Amino acid sequence: MSNRIGDLITFTLFGESHGAEIGVVAEGLPHGIPVDTDAIDRQLSRRRPSGAISTARRETDPYRIVSGVFGGYTTGAPICLTISNGDTKSKDYEELSYRPRPGHADYVSLVKYGGYGDYRGGGHFSGRLTAPLTAMGALVGSALESRGIRIGAHIYSVGDIKDTPFTPTDHQLAAAGEGFPTIDKAAGERMEQYMKDAAAEGDSVGGVIEIAVTGVPAGVGEPWFDGVESAMARALFGIPAVKGVEFGAGFGICGMKGSEANDPFYKDGEGRVLTKSNNNGGINGGITNGMPIIIRIAVKPTPSVFKEQKTLNLRTGEVESLSIKGRHDPAIIHRAVPVAESVAAMVMADLLAKRYGPLWLKGEDK
Amino acid sequence: MSNRIGDLITFTLFGESHGAEIGVVAEGLPHGIPVDTDAIDRQLSRRRPSGAISTARRETDPYRIVSGVFGGYTTGAPICLTISNGDTKSKDYEELSYRPRPGHADYVSLVKYGGYGDYRGGGHFSGRLTAPLTAMGALVGSALESRGIRIGAHIYSVGDIKDTPFTPTDHQLAAAGEGFPTIDKAAGERMEQYMKDAAAEGDSVGGVIEIAVTGVPAGVGEPWFDGVESAMARALFGIPAVKGVEFGAGFGICGMKGSEANDPFYKDGEGRVLTKSNNNGGINGGITNGMPIIIRIAVKPTPSVFKEQKTLNLRTGEVESLSIKGRHDPAIIHRAVPVAESVAAMVMADLLAKRYGPLWLKGEDK
Amino acid sequence: MSNRIGDLITFTLFGESHGAEIGVVAEGLPHGIPVDTDAIDRQLSRRRPSGAISTARRETDPYRIVSGVFGGYTTGAPICLTISNGDTKSKDYEELSYRPRPGHADYVSLVKYGGYGDYRGGGHFSGRLTAPLTAMGALVGSALESRGIRIGAHIYSVGDIKDTPFTPTDHQLAAAGEGFPTIDKAAGERMEQYMKDAAAEGDSVGGVIEIAVTGVPAGVGEPWFDGVESAMARALFGIPAVKGVEFGAGFGICGMKGSEANDPFYKDGEGRVLTKSNNNGGINGGITNGMPIIIRIAVKPTPSVFKEQKTLNLRTGEVESLSIKGRHDPAIIHRAVPVAESVAAMVMADLLAKRYGPLWLKGEDK
Amino acid sequence: MSNRIGDLITFTLFGESHGAEIGVVAEGLPHGIPVDTDAIDRQLSRRRPSGAISTARRETDPYRIVSGVFGGYTTGAPICLTISNGDTKSKDYEELSYRPRPGHADYVSLVKYGGYGDYRGGGHFSGRLTAPLTAMGALVGSALESRGIRIGAHIYSVGDIKDTPFTPTDHQLAAAGEGFPTIDKAAGERMEQYMKDAAAEGDSVGGVIEIAVTGVPAGVGEPWFDGVESAMARALFGIPAVKGVEFGAGFGICGMKGSEANDPFYKDGEGRVLTKSNNNGGINGGITNGMPIIIRIAVKPTPSVFKEQKTLNLRTGEVESLSIKGRHDPAIIHRAVPVAESVAAMVMADLLAKRYGPLWLKGEDK
Repeated sequence: MSNRIGDLITFTLFGESHGAEIGVVAEGLPHGIPVDTDAIDRQLSRRRPSGAISTARRETDPYRIVSGVFGGYTTGAPICLTISNGDTKSKDYEELSYRPRPGHADYVSLVKYGGYGDYRGGGHFSGRLTAPLTAMGALVGSALESRGIRIGAHIYSVGDIKDTPFTPTDHQLAAAGEGFPTIDKAAGERMEQYMKDAAAEGDSVGGVIEIAVTGVPAGVGEPWFDGVESAMARALFGIPAVKGVEFGAGFGICGMKGSEANDPFYKDGEGRVLTKSNNNGGINGGITNGMPIIIRIAVKPTPSVFKEQKTLNLRTGEVESLSIKGRHDPAIIHRAVPVAESVAAMVMADLLAKRYGPLWLKGEDK
Repeated sequence: MSNRIGDLITFTLFGESHGAEIGVVAEGLPHGIPVDTDAIDRQLSRRRPSGAISTARRETDPYRIVSGVFGGYTTGAPICLTISNGDTKSKDYEELSYRPRPGHADYVSLVKYGGYGDYRGGGHFSGRLTAPLTAMGALVGSALESRGIRIGAHIYSVGDIKDTPFTPTDHQLAAAGEGFPTIDKAAGERMEQYMKDAAAEGDSVGGVIEIAVTGVPAGVGEPWFDGVESAMARALFGIPAVKGVEFGAGFGICGMKGSEANDPFYKDGEGRVLTKSNNNGGINGGITNGMPIIIRIAVKPTPSVFKEQKTLNLRTGEVESLSIKGRHDPAIIHRAVPVAESVAAMVMADLLAKRYGPLWLKGEDK
Repeated sequence: MSNRIGDLITFTLFGESHGAEIGVVAEGLPHGIPVDTDAIDRQLSRRRPSGAISTARRETDPYRIVSGVFGGYTTGAPICLTISNGDTKSKDYEELSYRPRPGHADYVSLVKYGGYGDYRGGGHFSGRLTAPLTAMGALVGSALESRGIRIGAHIYSVGDIKDTPFTPTDHQLAAAGEGFPTIDKAAGERMEQYMKDAAAEGDSVGGVIEIAVTGVPAGVGEPWFDGVESAMARALFGIPAVKGVEFGAGFGICGMKGSEANDPFYKDGEGRVLTKSNNNGGINGGITNGMPIIIRIAVKPTPSVFKEQKTLNLRTGEVESLSIKGRHDPAIIHRAVPVAESVAAMVMADLLAKRYGPLWLKGEDK
Repeated sequence: MSNRIGDLITFTLFGESHGAEIGVVAEGLPHGIPVDTDAIDRQLSRRRPSGAISTARRETDPYRIVSGVFGGYTTGAPICLTISNGDTKSKDYEELSYRPRPGHADYVSLVKYGGYGDYRGGGHFSGRLTAPLTAMGALVGSALESRGIRIGAHIYSVGDIKDTPFTPTDHQLAAAGEGFPTIDKAAGERMEQYMKDAAAEGDSVGGVIEIAVTGVPAGVGEPWFDGVESAMARALFGIPAVKGVEFGAGFGICGMKGSEANDPFYKDGEGRVLTKSNNNGGINGGITNGMPIIIRIAVKPTPSVFKEQKTLNLRTGEVESLSIKGRHDPAIIHRAVPVAESVAAMVMADLLAKRYGPLWLKGEDK
């Protein structure tokens, strides 16, 4: 259903931007997974706004694990993780109920919920809800790592500026590392400057994030509608502002001939079956083939811009000028990198559980 | 689950390329929908191979509605629709169980199913299974049409050749019409020639399909993971060979500034709330805003090419030359157009049912 | 959803009593399970009407496995199994659309489906649909048996006549064996006579079926709403005519004190943890404790009786006399025994897959 | 999944008896439902322990609505309701991890969760989790009442003592009213005395609860596995200690002939189609027929008894004497009455939403 991903290991999101708490309930995660608080803190910190290219809203994200963890390990029961909403300024949002911001969910929320929706800060549609997703995904990601599966992402491009892309046949993919999430730090600096320039104009920018998952055995994923692509895309399109998802060579594969696009099989020195190229992004027929899974997502420019825009006053029926106030990011793409990693971790955990059973994610019982 | 899309109105796929029958079971469709056999025949005919750019396999697709229809109307009970597999030549496929075709699911099927999978003609992974999907989607599409919702698709591009794109703010979108599915017939002829040239080289081509859904009221779709983008992407990535899905301006939106990307609201002469541009593809926050829904999918080149390729002989561990035999399409993108329309219809029917209840899809009870 | 049980291994039912074919689609069953046609034939034969206590309708049940089986083994893809409806006499049912039979689904079908339902022979509500359920459950049951899990049922009581009940602490439960499904053959003969007497009066009888599942390891089932009781009850209430489901001492446990009802733990000579009594029917907190699972279901008398009854003519609004014609069972409880076993097998397979992964149900990959 | 009921309107449970908070997340409830805090308080109060026949644990149940409610109305977004666990004494439970209490989930939890489960007070298996279920069900129940649907329950029997049963053809069923939940107050007093006598012996008692749902239109529920019986039974068996569920005449219908069991249709003075008797409990073929829905559930005696019992010491392998300490109810059946009402309300809301769409539960949009 709507606020949930996963079939055997599920994650259900709740909360509003200006409510008391936002959170996520994970069901089906096996018992015995150590809760890696460092990993959670690290991912929350990477997602947190900082500096000139982020909202002035201070998100300290003091998370609580309300259930499902006992003595530092998961118990097997549902894990509810919440984050309280500290620094909210609700009166900035009063007009949204009748003067919808272009590119936002204000208008559709009004229609869908007949005026009963919580419009403050985007309510349930707010990107703020990616904070508990990120924290929970960090917990899941550390469990995957203990089984040899690593998930990393970086900004692939912003405007015309491109980071060094992943080498899709490399099983030890270079991660983005600390700080601004690019592999090429010089490219990252140019991106930051580009974001600052947009902010100075009262405008915003988007970009593309590239995600890689390595160490997944061949044979994971289900045919047709629970293939890795289907399951990943469903979840990744749930992240606010994502307007495109592609795998391997993605839309670029359409310019190739079949003889180029196909990835020929071979066996390496250790007897592993691999492919020479990886245009299919580690996935054939929806199922992993043992190569790195390569994903790119298109993140649109933050719709909150300080530049004057036009919108419709739904009370008067007149088109009026709109100057968005409040605290907003001129770009969220750098903050979306850990979110994308977390969502990918959740999807992988569910697909692995469906293949090998939920207990696979831990090791043996004590 | 794997072979199924939908929550309230679901579609479950079964069958193998060379089995006796392939089919789909639809659950949750309301009673009282007239079964439009012309619409089913038309869509099956558009999907059927024909001429030099398609496989020599003759697919006559004599479908049967086994259950759920009585006196020409749906009954409300599950509808099982099957198509028998007439013209199969299974011995062409004998080697696939140990010499996997690059770009195909042969290898992953072998790993996943431990050698028990039906490898003939791709088995359960075969594009052949899109035939019952197409037929069922035609039935659903005709019900949507009776409620003012129209779904149309065309080939957006093949190689460097581009069709006239949809005008995303136009509520009466030009359909592709009869014959090769482009809006610009001259572009279509160039595409066909390009396909024939590739076929002559023993190679294959892919392309991009653009889909539009018009007439959907604002407020349809659910937040987060059942947004229109999530639900559509999950289903569309289930179609074999799809490697990318984007909405509205898609990946192109990443090159825009926020002030360009946002779609400002206004009211037209009839009092409808609309947007001036449609970069968001009719969707904000996962939910329809009343504008046409615009989708593009990347279809990779058919992996079966007659040109010599390399693959791994899994028995000997040696890389060997592979010449694919059998009957294969040098391009499937033209045949995938009705498939994409049908899958989009199924997704819309489910989302509409979740918003308005399943009975909305018909009119009043008699 | 409605016509489906299971989460990881699912079974979806389709068809109508007088349609061309009825069937079931199983998804998620692992590859490599041998299809035991003897087991299927045996269970279909036990379900088949015979003699004076069953309908005169000849059900030869020639089943077909349309997909998901290759070379005698499951492939891992969906298995569609169908049975054609040979000997139907549709004109017996003409009046049902406006003179609903008491105790049947005729009236509710009319309301729910607005007159579009297939009323012939009960349509989609017909007990006839338990035939493909029985066949598929036999396939599943033989896979469970290869893992040491046995499912057996018998008629516990008809009227005042009681069969020897299961001994709930016995891990080698006596099965009903061939013929009329009681453990005590003399009790079975009295039941058959009681059924014949009712038939002679144009009346019908019901009874209670007892089901046991042995060999299930402790720790299977999920807390709260996917406990063994929840999952079993949901499925068993789907069998037409079932009006009650109980586990262990069932309703009888309400007359006990806690000190009697509790089942004390001990260890047997082989080091197995067992309980001295089994009032909880092998289930604590929804989860198996290693003891036999004991279930009883109440099956109401067949609602089709030849005796004159009253019903409402919905066209005229008058209460009228109704004499049911056609071919009907004066009792179905003996035929429901293999159905109950099959449904229990399906539920167990899904619960085991959720605990150990779907591959557990087979052995190792070849 | 495990901790969740419902398909279109879902309820997901989380928490442990001695964790910080326990709670439930409701998804799919429509916007615009007024939150009736009186109804929530009243049901929580009825569930709360009091007097000699209940645990000494003081449950004040200060609930919080964390999300999904704004300005006193539901918003349409997920509703997270939590209750904090104030008065916990965790050290009473130290031995449970190796000396399992008979009749409890201690042993199965240990096996299932490999020693990682939270054993304090039964952890996630604790009846304490029915508190948030009760609160949420009260919210749902008040919405149902505004649409003319009433749900009421009473203690049907304790030991040999019987309350006045519901008259199943009466559409204005007498509710249990204030205080001890029986219709016949004298019967209630005898039940209370019986419970006190058991408590004095250090023992416990169980009983049967009868639930009625009135005002549901005919045609609600789905055939086969989402019939009212299937959906209700799945949810009601989730309530701890329930070992049997029956509808209408239930197990008693097995002693009837078909001619008695059938409920003949007629039309009343207001033109409503009704039945003369109601042995089918308002349900034919899984679907409501417009008569009151009648359900009975068997609640086993509280397994915590102060009387000395035997259990297995899993560390030593020896059978030992066990004297349960802590604060426990000698009977929970009176407290289970509002729980059963709440669970029934949740199930009805989902079934109604699947029939009429989720917006039916409210009225028109403002």
